[in-house]
Order: sequence, then C-alpha cells, then structure tokens
Amino acid sequence: MIAKTPKPPYYAVIFSSNRTKEDNGYSEMADKMIKLAKEQDGFLGVESARNELGIIVSYWRDLNAIKKWKENTDHSIAREKGRNEWYKSFKTRIAKVERDYEFEKK
Amino acid sequence: MIAKTPKPPYYAVIFSSNRTKEDNGYSEMADKMIKLAKEQDGFLGVESARNELGIIVSYWRDLNAIKKWKENTDHSIAREKGRNEWYKSFKTRIAKVERDYEFEKK
Repeated sequence: MIAKTPKPPYYAVIFSSNRTKEDNGYSEMADKMIKLAKEQDGFLGVESARNELGIIVSYWRDLNAIKKWKENTDHSIAREKGRNEWYKSFKTRIAKVERDYEFEKK
Repeated sequence: MIAKTPKPPYYAVIFSSNRTKEDNGYSEMADKMIKLAKEQDGFLGVESARNELGIIVSYWRDLNAIKKWKENTDHSIAREKGRNEWYKSFKTRIAKVERDYEFEKK
C-alpha cells in the first residue's frame, strides 16, 4: 500500500537489501519490526517490495524520530541478527523528502 | 542490485505504484525507460522491486537532472501511458539523500 504521508518536508529511510537463503525467523521478525515501528513517535508510514532486491522505505517526521528508532533496543537486536543471518548486503539512505505528488485513477 | 551511488548529497526519486491488470507493453516500456534513464546526464543508479506494491528508486546528481529527465519527451509519453493504462495509483517523492551507509557480508 502506498503510504499516506503528510505534506513535505519529512524524511524517508530507504533500505535496499539482498537476502541470504536463510529464513530462520526472518518473516516473523520483519512483521514484528513493522508493527513496532508503527508505534514509534514520528513514524509516518512504510512501503515495501521484494524480488531479488528488497526495498523498504519508511517515512518519519524528522531526523530525531529516525535516531530514536535506530536506538530502539528490539530494533537494534533485529538489525544485529540481520547482519549475522539474513542479509548478504544492504544499503540504508536517509533522505529528506522535499516534494511529492500523486495520481489516482478515477 | 543495490545502486552504487557516490557520497551524499544526491537525490532520490521514490516512485511507489499500484498497477492495473493490463500488461499491454508495460514490461518493454519499463525496460526501455530504465535504459533511457541510464543515458541521462546526472543519473546515478536505480533500484526496483514489486509485489502488490511496486517501488522504483532512481538516484540523481541534483534537482536539475531530475527536471530534465521529467521533461524528456519519450519519458513524458511513457508517463502519460502509465496514467491511462498501467497504474491504478502512484506517488512520487523527491528526496535529498543526506547520509548513507552499507553492509556487505564478509
């Protein structure tokens, strides 16, 4: 689902990743982290898709909200497990959304 | 593949979309547009994935490169066709990448 974000400016965290072949609890952890992210102050929405490459874009009110989410204990444990087991490689980009526009078919 | 982008700052165009059921030349057009984007001045890379939701993130040197790509004639025709045939809805976000970091398993 396309995230219903407020008027810019706000922030996007673009997380692009290549998975290992291990599932080993990945799906459950991913669901748990999405649920936990939604409870954080300043969380605005999330979008994700995966083929060979996975892309998760989460949207946040400001850099401080992103920082707090990064420091969240459960999230830190999940990231550590991600590096050890689930990801071959990933790249995280922190970006300030300056403009957006949308289209919906009538 | 994770895009090999230079050191920030640079720009990301996050394009999130819901497709219609029509294929009608979509895949060929998507391939053609990726190829054409790669030829543009200021293009830095692209990442994409699709399940129910599709996400394409393209990376650009600056806002001017994005503007020129938006004004490209073939790209404009493809976008028009996208609104008429291929997309139920989409959202485009223009964002300035301020920081990035990456991980690769040893």
